[in-house]
Amino acid sequence: MSVTDELLANNARYAETFSGPLPLPPSRQLAVVACMDARLNVYALLGLNDGEAHVIRNAGGVVTQDEIRSLAISQRLLGTKEIILIHHTDCGMLTFTDDEFKDAVQKDTGIRPPWAAEAFPDLEEDVRQSVARIKADPFVVHKDRVRGFVFNVATGRLTEVR
Amino acid sequence: MSVTDELLANNARYAETFSGPLPLPPSRQLAVVACMDARLNVYALLGLNDGEAHVIRNAGGVVTQDEIRSLAISQRLLGTKEIILIHHTDCGMLTFTDDEFKDAVQKDTGIRPPWAAEAFPDLEEDVRQSVARIKADPFVVHKDRVRGFVFNVATGRLTEVR
Repeated sequence: MSVTDELLANNARYAETFSGPLPLPPSRQLAVVACMDARLNVYALLGLNDGEAHVIRNAGGVVTQDEIRSLAISQRLLGTKEIILIHHTDCGMLTFTDDEFKDAVQKDTGIRPPWAAEAFPDLEEDVRQSVARIKADPFVVHKDRVRGFVFNVATGRLTEVR
Repeated sequence: MSVTDELLANNARYAETFSGPLPLPPSRQLAVVACMDARLNVYALLGLNDGEAHVIRNAGGVVTQDEIRSLAISQRLLGTKEIILIHHTDCGMLTFTDDEFKDAVQKDTGIRPPWAAEAFPDLEEDVRQSVARIKADPFVVHKDRVRGFVFNVATGRLTEVR
Protein backbone atom coordinates (compact mmCIF):
# COMPACT_ATOMS: atom_id res chain seq x y z
CA MET A 1 0.00 0.00 0.00
CA SER A 2 1.51 3.35 -1.03
CA VAL A 3 1.49 6.42 1.21
CA THR A 4 -1.01 7.94 -1.22
CA ASP A 5 -3.41 5.02 -0.71
CA GLU A 6 -3.13 5.37 3.07
CA LEU A 7 -3.91 9.08 2.84
CA LEU A 8 -6.93 8.37 0.60
CA ALA A 9 -8.31 6.21 3.39
CA ASN A 10 -7.78 9.16 5.76
CA ASN A 11 -9.65 11.38 3.28
CA ALA A 12 -12.65 9.05 3.21
CA ARG A 13 -12.90 9.42 7.01
CA TYR A 14 -12.44 13.22 6.71
CA ALA A 15 -15.33 13.44 4.23
CA GLU A 16 -17.71 11.64 6.63
CA THR A 17 -17.90 14.65 8.93
CA PHE A 18 -17.09 17.39 6.39
CA SER A 19 -19.52 20.31 6.12
CA GLY A 20 -19.25 22.46 3.03
CA PRO A 21 -19.07 24.30 0.83
CA LEU A 22 -17.68 27.54 2.23
CA PRO A 23 -17.50 30.66 0.01
CA LEU A 24 -14.63 30.94 -2.50
CA PRO A 25 -13.10 34.29 -1.35
CA PRO A 26 -10.94 33.97 1.81
CA SER A 27 -13.00 35.38 4.68
CA ARG A 28 -9.97 36.93 6.45
CA GLN A 29 -8.83 38.65 3.21
CA LEU A 30 -5.38 37.22 3.85
CA ALA A 31 -2.72 35.41 1.81
CA VAL A 32 0.11 33.49 3.48
CA VAL A 33 3.38 32.66 1.68
CA ALA A 34 5.31 29.95 3.54
CA CYS A 35 8.02 27.35 3.04
CA MET A 36 6.91 23.86 1.93
CA ASP A 37 8.72 22.38 4.97
CA ALA A 38 6.85 19.43 6.47
CA ARG A 39 7.04 20.91 9.98
CA LEU A 40 5.11 24.08 9.08
CA ASN A 41 1.46 23.26 9.72
CA VAL A 42 0.33 26.68 8.52
CA TYR A 43 -3.33 26.38 9.56
CA ALA A 44 -2.39 25.19 13.05
CA LEU A 45 0.50 27.55 13.72
CA LEU A 46 -1.60 30.60 12.80
CA GLY A 47 -4.87 29.25 14.20
CA LEU A 48 -6.48 29.57 10.79
CA ASN A 49 -9.83 27.95 10.07
CA ASP A 50 -11.02 26.56 6.73
CA GLY A 51 -12.00 29.26 4.27
CA GLU A 52 -10.04 32.08 5.93
CA ALA A 53 -6.82 32.54 3.92
CA HIS A 54 -5.02 31.62 0.73
CA VAL A 55 -1.93 29.55 1.46
CA ILE A 56 0.95 29.70 -1.03
CA ARG A 57 3.94 27.45 -0.35
CA ASN A 58 7.23 26.54 -2.05
CA ALA A 59 10.82 25.58 -1.29
CA GLY A 60 12.02 28.32 1.06
CA GLY A 61 8.82 30.36 1.08
CA VAL A 62 10.52 32.64 -1.42
CA VAL A 63 8.84 35.11 -3.78
CA THR A 64 9.45 34.31 -7.45
CA GLN A 65 7.31 35.00 -10.50
CA ASP A 66 4.87 32.20 -9.58
CA GLU A 67 4.20 33.61 -6.12
CA ILE A 68 3.59 37.02 -7.72
CA ARG A 69 1.12 35.29 -10.08
CA SER A 70 -0.67 33.69 -7.12
CA LEU A 71 -0.69 36.91 -5.05
CA ALA A 72 -1.96 38.97 -8.01
CA ILE A 73 -4.83 36.51 -8.56
CA SER A 74 -5.50 36.37 -4.81
CA GLN A 75 -5.78 40.15 -4.47
CA ARG A 76 -7.30 41.09 -7.84
CA LEU A 77 -9.89 38.34 -8.17
CA LEU A 78 -10.52 37.08 -4.64
CA GLY A 79 -10.24 40.18 -2.47
CA THR A 80 -7.25 39.51 -0.20
CA LYS A 81 -5.46 42.60 1.12
CA GLU A 82 -2.97 41.40 3.73
CA ILE A 83 0.14 39.19 3.27
CA ILE A 84 2.07 37.10 5.82
CA LEU A 85 5.46 35.66 4.78
CA ILE A 86 6.91 32.73 6.76
CA HIS A 87 10.44 31.34 6.63
CA HIS A 88 11.69 28.99 9.37
CA THR A 89 14.73 27.87 11.35
CA ASP A 90 16.62 24.74 10.22
CA CYS A 91 15.56 25.40 6.60
CA GLY A 92 17.16 23.23 3.91
CA MET A 93 17.68 26.32 1.78
CA LEU A 94 20.38 27.47 4.22
CA THR A 95 22.53 24.41 3.49
CA PHE A 96 23.62 24.94 -0.13
CA THR A 97 24.12 27.61 -2.77
CA ASP A 98 22.36 28.03 -6.11
CA ASP A 99 25.60 27.25 -7.93
CA GLU A 100 26.19 24.07 -5.92
CA PHE A 101 22.66 22.90 -6.67
CA LYS A 102 23.04 23.60 -10.40
CA ASP A 103 26.42 21.81 -10.45
CA ALA A 104 24.94 18.73 -8.76
CA VAL A 105 21.92 18.57 -11.07
CA GLN A 106 24.10 19.07 -14.14
CA LYS A 107 26.43 16.28 -12.99
CA ASP A 108 23.44 13.97 -12.49
CA THR A 109 21.32 14.79 -15.54
CA GLY A 110 23.72 16.43 -18.00
CA ILE A 111 21.43 19.48 -18.03
CA ARG A 112 22.07 22.68 -16.04
CA PRO A 113 18.76 24.02 -14.66
CA PRO A 114 17.86 27.36 -16.30
CA TRP A 115 16.23 28.38 -12.98
CA ALA A 116 17.87 29.24 -9.66
CA ALA A 117 17.20 27.08 -6.59
CA GLU A 118 16.66 30.34 -4.63
CA ALA A 119 18.83 29.17 -1.71
CA PHE A 120 19.79 31.78 0.89
CA PRO A 121 22.50 32.06 3.56
CA ASP A 122 20.51 34.27 5.97
CA LEU A 123 16.88 33.73 7.01
CA GLU A 124 15.98 37.26 8.10
CA GLU A 125 17.66 38.75 5.05
CA ASP A 126 15.67 36.49 2.72
CA VAL A 127 12.42 37.42 4.45
CA ARG A 128 13.31 41.07 3.78
CA GLN A 129 14.18 40.11 0.18
CA SER A 130 10.75 38.50 -0.24
CA VAL A 131 8.96 41.56 1.18
CA ALA A 132 11.03 43.80 -1.13
CA ARG A 133 10.13 41.72 -4.19
CA ILE A 134 6.43 42.09 -3.39
CA LYS A 135 6.71 45.84 -2.72
CA ALA A 136 8.57 46.35 -6.02
CA ASP A 137 6.08 44.39 -8.12
CA PRO A 138 3.63 46.28 -10.34
CA PHE A 139 0.92 43.59 -10.34
CA VAL A 140 0.32 43.08 -6.59
CA VAL A 141 -2.29 45.66 -5.55
CA HIS A 142 -2.21 45.91 -1.74
CA LYS A 143 1.26 46.31 -0.23
CA ASP A 144 0.69 48.28 2.95
CA ARG A 145 0.10 45.19 5.11
CA VAL A 146 2.95 42.83 4.16
CA ARG A 147 4.77 41.38 7.17
CA GLY A 148 7.48 38.73 7.37
CA PHE A 149 8.25 36.17 10.09
CA VAL A 150 10.60 33.34 11.02
CA PHE A 151 8.96 30.23 12.48
CA ASN A 152 11.08 28.43 15.05
CA VAL A 153 10.70 24.67 14.44
CA ALA A 154 11.91 23.94 17.99
CA THR A 155 9.51 26.24 19.86
CA GLY A 156 6.59 26.72 17.44
CA ARG A 157 6.89 30.47 17.78
CA LEU A 158 6.83 33.16 15.04
CA THR A 159 9.27 36.06 15.31
CA GLU A 160 8.71 39.13 13.17
CA VAL A 161 11.47 40.31 10.85
CA ARG A 162 11.79 44.11 10.76
CA MET B 1 -6.01 45.13 15.31
CA SER B 2 -5.04 43.61 11.95
CA VAL B 3 -5.77 40.01 11.02
CA THR B 4 -2.02 39.38 11.25
CA ASP B 5 -1.96 40.60 14.86
CA GLU B 6 -4.89 38.33 15.74
CA LEU B 7 -3.09 35.35 14.20
CA LEU B 8 0.09 36.19 16.12
CA ALA B 9 -1.93 35.87 19.31
CA ASN B 10 -3.09 32.45 18.08
CA ASN B 11 0.56 31.53 17.43
CA ALA B 12 1.58 32.42 20.98
CA ARG B 13 -1.05 29.94 22.25
CA TYR B 14 0.11 27.33 19.69
CA ALA B 15 3.71 27.63 20.92
CA GLU B 16 2.67 26.94 24.53
CA THR B 17 1.99 23.27 23.78
CA PHE B 18 4.32 22.82 20.78
CA SER B 19 6.83 19.98 20.94
CA GLY B 20 9.70 20.10 18.50
CA PRO B 21 11.84 19.98 16.58
CA LEU B 22 11.01 17.13 14.21
CA PRO B 23 13.59 16.02 11.60
CA LEU B 24 13.93 18.10 8.41
CA PRO B 25 13.26 15.37 5.77
CA PRO B 26 9.53 14.54 5.38
CA SER B 27 8.96 11.21 7.14
CA ARG B 28 6.40 10.00 4.57
CA GLN B 29 8.75 10.83 1.64
CA LEU B 30 5.84 12.66 0.04
CA ALA B 31 5.31 16.03 -1.66
CA VAL B 32 1.83 17.47 -2.18
CA VAL B 33 1.08 20.14 -4.82
CA ALA B 34 -2.29 21.81 -4.17
CA CYS B 35 -4.28 24.93 -4.95
CA MET B 36 -3.89 27.88 -2.54
CA ASP B 37 -7.71 27.91 -2.07
CA ALA B 38 -8.70 28.77 1.50
CA ARG B 39 -11.01 25.74 1.73
CA LEU B 40 -8.25 23.17 1.13
CA ASN B 41 -6.93 22.31 4.58
CA VAL B 42 -4.29 19.99 3.12
CA TYR B 43 -3.09 18.48 6.43
CA ALA B 44 -6.64 17.76 7.56
CA LEU B 45 -8.06 16.48 4.28
CA LEU B 46 -5.20 13.99 3.86
CA GLY B 47 -4.85 13.20 7.56
CA LEU B 48 -1.21 14.36 7.48
CA ASN B 49 0.71 14.96 10.67
CA ASP B 50 3.48 17.50 11.22
CA GLY B 51 6.76 16.47 9.63
CA GLU B 52 5.30 14.00 7.15
CA ALA B 53 5.13 15.77 3.75
CA HIS B 54 6.24 18.82 1.82
CA VAL B 55 3.28 20.99 0.87
CA ILE B 56 3.58 23.16 -2.24
CA ARG B 57 0.65 25.47 -3.05
CA ASN B 58 -0.21 28.13 -5.61
CA ALA B 59 -3.13 29.59 -7.55
CA GLY B 60 -4.72 26.55 -9.19
CA GLY B 61 -2.29 23.96 -7.90
CA VAL B 62 -0.63 24.14 -11.29
CA VAL B 63 2.89 23.02 -12.18
CA THR B 64 5.09 25.85 -13.44
CA GLN B 65 8.85 26.34 -13.21
CA ASP B 66 8.65 27.23 -9.52
CA GLU B 67 6.84 23.99 -8.61
CA ILE B 68 9.49 22.08 -10.58
CA ARG B 69 12.13 23.94 -8.53
CA SER B 70 10.39 22.96 -5.29
CA LEU B 71 9.86 19.33 -6.35
CA ALA B 72 13.46 18.98 -7.54
CA ILE B 73 14.74 20.29 -4.18
CA SER B 74 12.23 18.08 -2.32
CA GLN B 75 13.33 14.90 -4.10
CA ARG B 76 17.04 15.57 -4.59
CA LEU B 77 17.90 17.06 -1.21
CA LEU B 78 15.18 15.86 1.14
CA GLY B 79 14.35 12.36 -0.05
CA THR B 80 10.70 12.55 -1.17
CA LYS B 81 9.65 10.01 -3.81
CA GLU B 82 5.88 10.28 -4.16
CA ILE B 83 3.78 13.21 -5.44
CA ILE B 84 0.08 14.01 -4.89
CA LEU B 85 -1.52 16.76 -7.02
CA ILE B 86 -4.77 18.37 -5.83
CA HIS B 87 -7.11 20.63 -7.78
CA HIS B 88 -10.66 21.32 -6.49
CA THR B 89 -14.24 22.03 -7.51
CA ASP B 90 -15.45 25.66 -7.60
CA CYS B 91 -11.89 26.84 -8.40
CA GLY B 92 -11.43 30.52 -9.31
CA MET B 93 -9.12 29.48 -12.15
CA LEU B 94 -12.15 28.09 -14.02
CA THR B 95 -13.78 31.53 -14.19
CA PHE B 96 -11.47 33.47 -16.53
CA THR B 97 -8.90 33.04 -19.30
CA ASP B 98 -5.23 34.01 -19.31
CA ASP B 99 -5.94 36.66 -21.97
CA GLU B 100 -8.81 38.17 -19.96
CA PHE B 101 -6.60 38.38 -16.87
CA LYS B 102 -3.76 40.03 -18.81
CA ASP B 103 -6.19 42.49 -20.41
CA ALA B 104 -7.62 43.46 -17.01
CA VAL B 105 -4.20 43.92 -15.40
CA GLN B 106 -2.94 45.92 -18.37
CA LYS B 107 -6.01 48.15 -18.21
CA ASP B 108 -5.45 48.72 -14.48
CA THR B 109 -1.65 49.12 -14.34
CA GLY B 110 -0.63 49.97 -17.90
CA ILE B 111 1.66 46.92 -17.88
CA ARG B 112 0.80 43.56 -19.46
CA PRO B 113 2.05 40.70 -17.23
CA PRO B 114 4.84 38.77 -18.95
CA TRP B 115 3.59 35.62 -17.15
CA ALA B 116 0.40 33.64 -17.76
CA ALA B 117 -2.23 33.39 -15.02
CA GLU B 118 -2.39 29.62 -15.75
CA ALA B 119 -6.21 29.59 -15.78
CA PHE B 120 -7.92 26.44 -17.07
CA PRO B 121 -11.40 25.59 -18.38
CA ASP B 122 -11.41 21.93 -17.29
CA LEU B 123 -10.31 20.62 -13.87
CA GLU B 124 -9.51 17.01 -14.78
CA GLU B 125 -7.67 18.08 -17.92
CA ASP B 126 -5.49 20.49 -15.94
CA VAL B 127 -4.66 17.79 -13.39
CA ARG B 128 -3.50 15.64 -16.33
CA GLN B 129 -1.57 18.64 -17.68
CA SER B 130 0.20 19.04 -14.32
CA VAL B 131 1.10 15.33 -14.17
CA ALA B 132 2.38 15.54 -17.77
CA ARG B 133 4.56 18.56 -16.97
CA ILE B 134 6.19 16.66 -14.09
CA LYS B 135 6.70 13.50 -16.15
CA ALA B 136 8.31 15.51 -18.98
CA ASP B 137 10.70 17.39 -16.70
CA PRO B 138 14.39 16.41 -16.64
CA PHE B 139 15.07 17.64 -13.08
CA VAL B 140 12.40 15.75 -11.08
CA VAL B 141 13.90 12.37 -10.16
CA HIS B 142 11.04 10.08 -9.07
CA LYS B 143 8.04 10.04 -11.45
CA ASP B 144 6.57 6.57 -11.03
CA ARG B 145 4.29 7.57 -8.14
CA VAL B 146 2.65 10.80 -9.31
CA ARG B 147 -1.14 10.83 -8.87
CA GLY B 148 -3.68 13.60 -9.39
CA PHE B 149 -6.96 14.31 -7.62
CA VAL B 150 -9.91 16.71 -7.53
CA PHE B 151 -11.07 17.77 -4.05
CA ASN B 152 -14.81 18.41 -3.80
CA VAL B 153 -15.32 21.53 -1.65
CA ALA B 154 -18.92 20.49 -0.95
CA THR B 155 -18.25 16.93 0.23
CA GLY B 156 -14.61 16.99 1.36
CA ARG B 157 -13.84 14.00 -0.83
CA LEU B 158 -10.89 13.44 -3.20
CA THR B 159 -11.56 11.81 -6.58
CA GLU B 160 -8.63 10.46 -8.57
CA VAL B 161 -8.08 11.71 -12.13
CA ARG B 162 -7.00 8.94 -14.50
